[in-house]
Amino acid sequence: MTDSGALTTITEHAGKDAFVSLDAWWRAATYLSVGQIYLRDNPLLRRPLEPEHIKPRLLGHFGTVPGLTLLYAHLNRVIAERGTEMLFIAGPGHGGPAMNAVSWLEGTWSATYPDMPRSEDGMRELFSRFSAPGGIPSHTSPHVPGSIQEGGELGYSLVHAYGAALDDPDLVVACVIGDGEAETAALSASWQSAAFLDPRTDGAVLPILHLNGWKIDNPTVMDRMPEQQLRDLVSGHGHDPIIVDLRDATDPIEIHSVMAHAMDRAFDLIAQIQRRARSAGGSESEQAPRWPMIVLRSRKGWTGPEEVDGEPVEGTWRSHQVPLEDVASSPDRLAQLERWLRSYRPDELFDERGVPTREVRDLVPEPMGATMSGTSRANGGLRRRDLVTPELAGEAVENVDRASNESATTVFGEWLGELVRANPRDLRIFAADELRSNRLAQGVLPATPKQWNQQQRGVDEDLASRGRVMEVLSEHLCQGWLEGYVLTGRHGLFTSYEAFVHVVDSMFNQYAKWLEAAATYPWRAELASFTYLLSSHVWRQDHNGFTHQDPGFLDLAARKSSDIVRLSLPPDANTLLVTMERAFTEPGRINVVVAGKQPEKQWFSLDAARRVVADGAGILPGAADAANGTDGDHDPDVVLACSGDVPTQEADAARELVLELAPSLRIRVVTVIDLLRLRAGEPQSLDDEAFATLFGEGVPIVFAFHGYPHLIKELLFDLPVTAGVSVRGYQERGSTTTPFDMLLQNEIDRFTLAADVLNRCRMDEDERAEALAVLANRREQAANHLHRFGVDDPALA
Amino acid sequence: MTDSGALTTITEHAGKDAFVSLDAWWRAATYLSVGQIYLRDNPLLRRPLEPEHIKPRLLGHFGTVPGLTLLYAHLNRVIAERGTEMLFIAGPGHGGPAMNAVSWLEGTWSATYPDMPRSEDGMRELFSRFSAPGGIPSHTSPHVPGSIQEGGELGYSLVHAYGAALDDPDLVVACVIGDGEAETAALSASWQSAAFLDPRTDGAVLPILHLNGWKIDNPTVMDRMPEQQLRDLVSGHGHDPIIVDLRDATDPIEIHSVMAHAMDRAFDLIAQIQRRARSAGGSESEQAPRWPMIVLRSRKGWTGPEEVDGEPVEGTWRSHQVPLEDVASSPDRLAQLERWLRSYRPDELFDERGVPTREVRDLVPEPMGATMSGTSRANGGLRRRDLVTPELAGEAVENVDRASNESATTVFGEWLGELVRANPRDLRIFAADELRSNRLAQGVLPATPKQWNQQQRGVDEDLASRGRVMEVLSEHLCQGWLEGYVLTGRHGLFTSYEAFVHVVDSMFNQYAKWLEAAATYPWRAELASFTYLLSSHVWRQDHNGFTHQDPGFLDLAARKSSDIVRLSLPPDANTLLVTMERAFTEPGRINVVVAGKQPEKQWFSLDAARRVVADGAGILPGAADAANGTDGDHDPDVVLACSGDVPTQEADAARELVLELAPSLRIRVVTVIDLLRLRAGEPQSLDDEAFATLFGEGVPIVFAFHGYPHLIKELLFDLPVTAGVSVRGYQERGSTTTPFDMLLQNEIDRFTLAADVLNRCRMDEDERAEALAVLANRREQAANHLHRFGVDDPALA
Repeated sequence: MTDSGALTTITEHAGKDAFVSLDAWWRAATYLSVGQIYLRDNPLLRRPLEPEHIKPRLLGHFGTVPGLTLLYAHLNRVIAERGTEMLFIAGPGHGGPAMNAVSWLEGTWSATYPDMPRSEDGMRELFSRFSAPGGIPSHTSPHVPGSIQEGGELGYSLVHAYGAALDDPDLVVACVIGDGEAETAALSASWQSAAFLDPRTDGAVLPILHLNGWKIDNPTVMDRMPEQQLRDLVSGHGHDPIIVDLRDATDPIEIHSVMAHAMDRAFDLIAQIQRRARSAGGSESEQAPRWPMIVLRSRKGWTGPEEVDGEPVEGTWRSHQVPLEDVASSPDRLAQLERWLRSYRPDELFDERGVPTREVRDLVPEPMGATMSGTSRANGGLRRRDLVTPELAGEAVENVDRASNESATTVFGEWLGELVRANPRDLRIFAADELRSNRLAQGVLPATPKQWNQQQRGVDEDLASRGRVMEVLSEHLCQGWLEGYVLTGRHGLFTSYEAFVHVVDSMFNQYAKWLEAAATYPWRAELASFTYLLSSHVWRQDHNGFTHQDPGFLDLAARKSSDIVRLSLPPDANTLLVTMERAFTEPGRINVVVAGKQPEKQWFSLDAARRVVADGAGILPGAADAANGTDGDHDPDVVLACSGDVPTQEADAARELVLELAPSLRIRVVTVIDLLRLRAGEPQSLDDEAFATLFGEGVPIVFAFHGYPHLIKELLFDLPVTAGVSVRGYQERGSTTTPFDMLLQNEIDRFTLAADVLNRCRMDEDERAEALAVLANRREQAANHLHRFGVDDPALA
Repeated sequence: MTDSGALTTITEHAGKDAFVSLDAWWRAATYLSVGQIYLRDNPLLRRPLEPEHIKPRLLGHFGTVPGLTLLYAHLNRVIAERGTEMLFIAGPGHGGPAMNAVSWLEGTWSATYPDMPRSEDGMRELFSRFSAPGGIPSHTSPHVPGSIQEGGELGYSLVHAYGAALDDPDLVVACVIGDGEAETAALSASWQSAAFLDPRTDGAVLPILHLNGWKIDNPTVMDRMPEQQLRDLVSGHGHDPIIVDLRDATDPIEIHSVMAHAMDRAFDLIAQIQRRARSAGGSESEQAPRWPMIVLRSRKGWTGPEEVDGEPVEGTWRSHQVPLEDVASSPDRLAQLERWLRSYRPDELFDERGVPTREVRDLVPEPMGATMSGTSRANGGLRRRDLVTPELAGEAVENVDRASNESATTVFGEWLGELVRANPRDLRIFAADELRSNRLAQGVLPATPKQWNQQQRGVDEDLASRGRVMEVLSEHLCQGWLEGYVLTGRHGLFTSYEAFVHVVDSMFNQYAKWLEAAATYPWRAELASFTYLLSSHVWRQDHNGFTHQDPGFLDLAARKSSDIVRLSLPPDANTLLVTMERAFTEPGRINVVVAGKQPEKQWFSLDAARRVVADGAGILPGAADAANGTDGDHDPDVVLACSGDVPTQEADAARELVLELAPSLRIRVVTVIDLLRLRAGEPQSLDDEAFATLFGEGVPIVFAFHGYPHLIKELLFDLPVTAGVSVRGYQERGSTTTPFDMLLQNEIDRFTLAADVLNRCRMDEDERAEALAVLANRREQAANHLHRFGVDDPALA
């Protein structure tokens, strides 16, 4: 029962026809879900059920289905009555059969997959392919029209919902959260999102917590809370709770009446909040409104078998997946399944051709784009608009030489500010309280404030109820908001400390899998790229130390195909600018960009930066084979490869040391920006000729890498590297110390690199020994200086 | 003010002496914190402050310090008055100076680091080394006596606190949560922990939410909530809120009176809950008790500079790190710093030798083991007891041949049940609702129920208010609880689906960093190993599909040294048993064990399993070089290496295919269990001789790997592998399909492996072509069978 007092009858909300339609629609969607789990033939049950109609392997999750279909039906009524633009997010996405079913009922399934028409044949095909090898996945995934939400790893529904609602004032996102999902960390943090939503310029989110009481094998924390604690919790999350308890409800009139009442109240409240905010003449609200939220209590596996072999199934964890097993081999079970299926009265729901009857179709919004399964918001690429990109020349560093000293992220931040000004409606920046620390604030905050819809105080700076920047101390929220924003057709950037982006490793993986899977469905239009800018990186955690030193996100991302993922390590400001311009214009990817924030030497003019970023790697300007300029004529004696801003500086310094100590050697510094182009056998790979042009043939390589050296080893494994290679990178050493000491401790400093070069060259042994001794001596001097003074020699940094 | 009504005076709670002592102690600890940030000399300020007393680089975080020191002082009063056994967890661990300071005041610092005695010299040394290169880290880390909590990545304080409290009924864990940290996902989920705590047999946790209002650069969500919403939220998390607002407090009597009152109330409530639960004669409680929780509102940077250059600092984000910069170069700033330091009246706090005065020392609990910085619970290795381990022989598989068919995790589960029975007080198992799915429930649940302290219902099974298993749908909680449990001297296992353990990548990294750093402090005693058992792995996600297929946690873990991390892929039940026995007896590591749960072929007898697990790799029994048994006499023609249960089965099948098609070839199957022993240059590495014995010299290798092939490539990069190597593994292909189709799609099936072998052998070209054609044909037949029938040919699986 809702908590609003007296039970009103359905006719007060929706009229008799609406009730008939609601109930027919609910039964139809649930029937279609059960059919997917069990049937490979006789889909309309016009014949008695026989063992050969049963699928050879029973797979799928029924437990959550009836709640999902009930909610979807009632949201359809709201669309019909109010014309609301709605997006549906199914947190319990393992209820895949339900999402396939509703889309089939609405005709979007057949429009998307013409080989599965809205007919008996199409129904049989849907049933047969569901959860069959190579067929339709059992979880919600990119195959489902209307879905932006994976049903595999749980926890991301609510944060996706808020990402989708941003900057879309006409949209209401109905987000069903499973009570299992509600225990995850990501979901637990997502409740904070309401504090950021602007009721004037953003859409609304209606969270619907679906308490059916059980996970796979355990009760859920929220279901077993005392009722008052649950109310307090919902209120504490800033919501006005509407609690609907249908656990004991059996009468369809009662069920639909109560549910319709709750929906009406929720959508009335949303409308009221928006009307007030939007009519206030644009003034800032004092405090986030208390958005409504529905808590639906219902039996897990509702409408399914109550008992099987004397054990309770409906209302318990036993209904989580397939409530009734061994159906084909047991006549009793087969009969029980048939009773169950017929309890939905399929004859009333589908005509003899398998087409949904008028009662069912009455609840399907029109046109198709108004349905939740047909909305273009769930196929955001269709709505994606190219960004207006300001000229890079306005912000590029003009003096590029070894004497220049610029912070790459600061330079980029200035351009980003311009980008924000040029795209005020569909571009956002997300950060976990690190915008300023990553040195983007200086350029960005003059262009836009940070969005914050809680109380503001006089001392605050750069906060407003609307703005293009969102900061919260949760990488999960930053990642999830941006996913939801991009999935619905917009653009954005997530900037993080390099070490802490590991917090969302798993979200990265799942999002990459979404893109990989989506690419196999041609009807899914390409999204804008999801871009990470990682700074405050491993080499510059001077005062934060060991916990903040972790370059391993690159390794994680490198597990995915370079069709999807780009790993970029621009060594200076102009290469960063060009890299980011591409990130904001090239669709369909995940860009992981690692860049320095400290003032550093600059190497590439804007033109040179455009060339080297396009090529993916290139010779460092001024660091070609020898001081006497024999570039390209011969292979060098050694290639000093590097990737990352700090390694590039050390490699260049190592080259100078080598040329000083052994002037006849030909040393080339090659900086690798687009890391995965090193990996052989993928469409983006450097071809053999390009590789030979940069790295020579049979030339030893000394590689200084920003991250763990392992990553370079796996990339080079399949490359034609015939002479020796030594790879240096981060070795998990160092803590609170100076930048140069970090290099010394991890043995990636200029002296060590120069020694590597000398050890790999063919040269006179005495000369080599002498040069190595000089290097060792200078390295020790540098280390001693450091230990004596606790600061880096300015000549080193 | 507390919310309990009238303000009572300090004397009612603690007496005048206690007030003097509290205030002196608070000032002393805060003074020592400021000193660490600023001073390299003149630590007692007995001379006027000069620029040369100032450190060359000012690093550290002050904002959170005064709140931490105030709380610590008042917890000390509770210890003094009640004799409570207490552990302190500092969520805002970047307030490192505070934690160093309190430990210095209590004498544990000097006992741990005799070169920093509790004297002026020791104080100077502490100040100088803090946040200096190679010195004392600026965040709480293993260097701090009394800490089990890193201060780097935020979010884990509360879950650690609950892990520490389990099975320690005399302990109260006081857990300070920063309001920045409170926004993280992990912390947001951690509130659920209270629902699992048994008031009879577990200790208590006192969460203290420290609202100082600001993160680095932004206000915090919880600070800006309306007061009623905050109360609802705390109540919704199941706590009785005690709200202390000291933002406007300036009078020390008022401050300490209010704080002491709140502490007394919290500890009274804890005592009351425990007394009631423990006197109830052991009956199950109906519902989790409402534990108290303190919310402390105070000004960020409290007692620091109110303004700097006309801008407010105290009470704003500007006090987050160093409130007053450029001190050495500006006489005005220097004077302001001196006023600030003298405001703590150091002359009253330390005698002329730098020893804390009696007023300060009065608040130090005695003996040292009773202090929060000296408790052995924060150096859990001291309390660690060896587990009683049942004989493996009781559970081991006896018939090991190709006809046997056993589920490895089920067999292990039986032994784990015995292990639980033998160790009822200090061993726990954590799972994200996956114990049964990973097939451990059958063995474990007869030995112990699942712990659950919320409402129970008649339909529940295997739940009780105390039990050795904890299940919640949050990998963060499983990981964090077990961390807290192990860090305080106990043992445990976290079992997860392989794909979803990525959710805690970042926690794994931080925990590994803790172990790496702790190993450099000899006074830190070795902890029990933290063990993951990952099952429901990438190759057997038949009905869950693409989102559930991810073997990349191995790659993440491989970034750490094999001194810390063991990656184990036992191919059958007996090797899993031996691997897990070692995991539970060998201390100090993180074990990542990947094992199959499906019934599979068995290879190793228990004795053979002991040998191969000890060696790290070995020849698969019955799969030595040739059918005619020439083992070891000659190098084989090809080594078919494998790692993981499914690859081992495929490699063995490939060997049989090759021997059928080319009977003269000598093929050896080597299964690698301890993966990181392949990596060169570490203490655990296989030496060259061991490598040559297994892999021959100059013998081509065909490697079938459980995970991404990249990992094998990086491991082999530095090994003496001179002949060709081909590596196969998971290629991100496949979704809802059969197990064998997964192998086909990822090209790691027996036919492909056999073809790889043939392609690497020296053999007659016609013979090779003919054999390859046969393989291609059989592969196609298998695929067709699959597509026709939608099930694997039993002969293949």
